[in-house]
Amino acid sequence: MEERIVGIIAGVLTSCSLIPQLIKMVKNKKADDVSTVMLLILFAGLGLWVWYGIMREDWPIIITNSFSALMNGIIMLLQLKYKRNK
Amino acid sequence: MEERIVGIIAGVLTSCSLIPQLIKMVKNKKADDVSTVMLLILFAGLGLWVWYGIMREDWPIIITNSFSALMNGIIMLLQLKYKRNK
Repeated sequence: MEERIVGIIAGVLTSCSLIPQLIKMVKNKKADDVSTVMLLILFAGLGLWVWYGIMREDWPIIITNSFSALMNGIIMLLQLKYKRNK
Repeated sequence: MEERIVGIIAGVLTSCSLIPQLIKMVKNKKADDVSTVMLLILFAGLGLWVWYGIMREDWPIIITNSFSALMNGIIMLLQLKYKRNK
């Protein structure tokens, strides 16, 4: 298979993996078992992947990691919100 | 900065992000709020990233995604175990 296609599918899967987590959080209005440290480290890592993608002009990496970082950011904000509402 | 260094730091961060989640799970002996669908999709995606890295001979991608897939696998097994113990 063409490498770009594998990269795009891989990126779409890893990016979209945060969507069910987001849905679960919104449904249950809590995310106590989700590690905040994980989210913070992941956010920093995703940001650096975007930078890496820009340097290599690797579009699957740039686009998918940007989307992941966005999802990750929303999850962090929601977790903060649910913790405050307790 | 050299692109390989950015890639390695990015990969180490995204790979290691699952470690605090693992620690939190083991400490609390539960992971009810962690989405199983997320873990499954993430596992498939990480596997494809490894494949993509092999095709591009991109070592930061191969090594870090292999490690992430391993962490992800352990988290899935632990989640299954804690659910059964209920």
